[in-house]
Amino acid sequence: MAKKNKAQFVQDIADIKEDFPQWYTDVVIKTELVDYGPVKGSMVIRPYGYSIWENIQRELDTRFKETGHQNAYFPMLIPYSFLTREKNHIEGFAPEVALVTHYGEEELAEKLVVRPTSETIVCEMYKKWVKSYRDLPVLINQWANVFRCEKTTRPFLRTSEFLWQEGHTLHRTHEEALEETLKMLGVYEEFMKNVLAVPVLTGRKSEKEKFAGANATYSMEAMMLDGKSLQAGTSHDLGTNFAKGFEIKYLDSDGEHKMPYQTSWGVSTRLIGALIMAHGDQRGLALPPRVAPIQAIVIPIASHKEGVVDKADELYNELKVAGIRADRDYSDNSPGWKFNEWEMKGVPLRVEQGPRDIENGVVQIFRRDTCEKVEVARENIAETVTLLLEEVHENMYNKAKHFLETHIQVAENIEDMKDILDNQCFVKTMWCGDPECELKIKEMYQASARVMPFDQTPVGTKCVACGKVHTEETPLNTIYFARAY
Amino acid sequence: MAKKNKAQFVQDIADIKEDFPQWYTDVVIKTELVDYGPVKGSMVIRPYGYSIWENIQRELDTRFKETGHQNAYFPMLIPYSFLTREKNHIEGFAPEVALVTHYGEEELAEKLVVRPTSETIVCEMYKKWVKSYRDLPVLINQWANVFRCEKTTRPFLRTSEFLWQEGHTLHRTHEEALEETLKMLGVYEEFMKNVLAVPVLTGRKSEKEKFAGANATYSMEAMMLDGKSLQAGTSHDLGTNFAKGFEIKYLDSDGEHKMPYQTSWGVSTRLIGALIMAHGDQRGLALPPRVAPIQAIVIPIASHKEGVVDKADELYNELKVAGIRADRDYSDNSPGWKFNEWEMKGVPLRVEQGPRDIENGVVQIFRRDTCEKVEVARENIAETVTLLLEEVHENMYNKAKHFLETHIQVAENIEDMKDILDNQCFVKTMWCGDPECELKIKEMYQASARVMPFDQTPVGTKCVACGKVHTEETPLNTIYFARAY
Repeated sequence: MAKKNKAQFVQDIADIKEDFPQWYTDVVIKTELVDYGPVKGSMVIRPYGYSIWENIQRELDTRFKETGHQNAYFPMLIPYSFLTREKNHIEGFAPEVALVTHYGEEELAEKLVVRPTSETIVCEMYKKWVKSYRDLPVLINQWANVFRCEKTTRPFLRTSEFLWQEGHTLHRTHEEALEETLKMLGVYEEFMKNVLAVPVLTGRKSEKEKFAGANATYSMEAMMLDGKSLQAGTSHDLGTNFAKGFEIKYLDSDGEHKMPYQTSWGVSTRLIGALIMAHGDQRGLALPPRVAPIQAIVIPIASHKEGVVDKADELYNELKVAGIRADRDYSDNSPGWKFNEWEMKGVPLRVEQGPRDIENGVVQIFRRDTCEKVEVARENIAETVTLLLEEVHENMYNKAKHFLETHIQVAENIEDMKDILDNQCFVKTMWCGDPECELKIKEMYQASARVMPFDQTPVGTKCVACGKVHTEETPLNTIYFARAY
Repeated sequence: MAKKNKAQFVQDIADIKEDFPQWYTDVVIKTELVDYGPVKGSMVIRPYGYSIWENIQRELDTRFKETGHQNAYFPMLIPYSFLTREKNHIEGFAPEVALVTHYGEEELAEKLVVRPTSETIVCEMYKKWVKSYRDLPVLINQWANVFRCEKTTRPFLRTSEFLWQEGHTLHRTHEEALEETLKMLGVYEEFMKNVLAVPVLTGRKSEKEKFAGANATYSMEAMMLDGKSLQAGTSHDLGTNFAKGFEIKYLDSDGEHKMPYQTSWGVSTRLIGALIMAHGDQRGLALPPRVAPIQAIVIPIASHKEGVVDKADELYNELKVAGIRADRDYSDNSPGWKFNEWEMKGVPLRVEQGPRDIENGVVQIFRRDTCEKVEVARENIAETVTLLLEEVHENMYNKAKHFLETHIQVAENIEDMKDILDNQCFVKTMWCGDPECELKIKEMYQASARVMPFDQTPVGTKCVACGKVHTEETPLNTIYFARAY
């Protein structure tokens, strides 16, 4: 990489307060997380970005297996007719699918779609595999690429092709299926907190916002630094909607043929966008330690002086041996350049050591989350770094949680929503459930219904849009509205 | 799963000696490794099969990273015109590609192909990323799905869509690129030996058999139990063929603009087919321990007797804690049924314990590789099992190596090739290099040129097909011919 100076870095990244979307684009491109692909709406995930995805995958995959799921792989190309077997499904996805019509010169008898999601092909196989109640539950997850044509795209947040995992399960009863749906939403929520350091709001989606083919969609919503909401993951109670279309039936212990209840749940490379927009600042990325490709970067100061690089090597090796994802920068760039570079790349800890530090038996550690430097003893450095990484995680989570909590405001009247939204906050309010009211809010403020939280404590007495009154007998919904990605 | 008896198992699997292809199909379907997808030529990798793939991925990925490679992800859909920028590439792949012509109702201005391999789209991005000699080498790998329409398909061995990894690297000099090509072939060979317990023959492919767009293709060939060859992985020296088509240039340290040299290398889910066909027997799968989803299955005998299941649990937990991939079968099937089931599924070790064993402080261990039972002390069982798994691996490798070595025969005349091939052996012979001679052998015996080994010690004095004489000045090629998958 060519040598640059401090001034250039600042010039190159748009002001985070003034133009958040441009700040985001500048950061993801400049830090080499991602690049634009040649086909409109496509992205290339570069090594630094893919490494974050690998860490996300490892953390999630462990959790899926601990909750009894196994991975499998289903074909990417699906007969078009499969999509039509669930009415809402085809309506939702038909405009977005990529159609394969030829193999080479040969036109296909039935056109195929590149999977936008896999419920249909999964059902086709489950129909073959599930015969008896003994075959239930089926608990399968798939890591895959999917494709949905999108008009407006942005790296990680919304791209035509993206990488994700999709869980697809079958159960004997609706109770069990609902339990699974909520359990996996819980797994996601815990992962967001303990791995990405991002707090989320969870709850149920409105009818308008639910998955095409679901009875109910549960979602987690994360707040970005511009006060917009990002749907970070969803978990669907599919009922028997797809099972009907694919005629999945099993022989129950009572000798009757029954239809199983189905769930699906997924998160995607969108999570990388979420963590960037939840933690970044004017200097660039600030990566949560548990997914940061590099957790600590070792930088020798005055490295031309004898022994300094050797000592840096010792430091580096000690960190590596302790299982810390450490790296070192011995390039001939100036320390100032390196500081900027690794801060922009969001490395949680910078570990510096110069001749005087060596003499004094200390190292200087710069924390990316607080942008403060601390001097620590050289002895037991791996232990110190490990503890600091924990502290960084906690601090990042608490900061994001504080931000979320201080950016939610209650609105009792629709007029009040404007200021709240313009002040980059979520609106917590009451809603009668009528899609007309939802639409009205959308049209007035470009804000959408995000989730109806599980805690339905009322925050008002009437529907924010139509004024319908909340009563014990005909309760309204407590709900969050926000502008969203 | 429904209860079955011993007799049925044997009935259900075709005779391995009489109908090897049917044996293969029976085994992969019955053991639930894989199933046929709804679209012709597609497969569904079921959890038991996918788990083998996950183990393969983990082992390979570690090796790629140790040799300095990073993972990235490139888009699946590639503009058709990209393929045409390398003449041989488009000729080779045009008939096989799946074409995307529409997004929903909207016809695309330029049709897209589902990647059959990613050299072209990778080059398009490398052109953007590589400016200076300081940007070299580029050492990137991708785990992805690819699609090639195939006429004759077989699960794992040849399917339209398959999963693989593809390494794509750029270098300053041809020497360095060639070194990379051979290094990665070496990584594959070591992996085959130490993980899949499969010996391979390595060397260079003939012009006819090389990758569409390569200067030279290096391959590893594994021998299946029917004496056929399976190309298990390839590594390509691409020269500057693609770099030219995509105008990749960098500024070298001497101030000149130069073209980098490129390599690519890949292995796929085909490896699962390879290990099945290299190690299986009439009872079904025999999985090499280092990729077996279950390394040891614990089966209590007379489990209705008090304490037997508790003791089995203790056994199981001890194995798990030691990092062994153990499982347990407490189902109400008979021990005989369970023995058959887990033997068919290829689990390397079966650990049995009945009341008498408990009394005597011993366990019975059945080795899938030798089909022999040994009695071992209950004490330190995890250590014993770990050692046994190593032994099983070594024995499986040595058996396969012996099979390979005893199934290679030298032919000096084309007439001799028939018996050798019919006796399920590889032919080692001399070849002048003329594609006509290669074609003649193909037409006569349906055998193809597999590899020209690095050790070119002659095994004859003239070309097996045309009789051209080998001299020091105009040497012929030492080469393996075989029937192949």
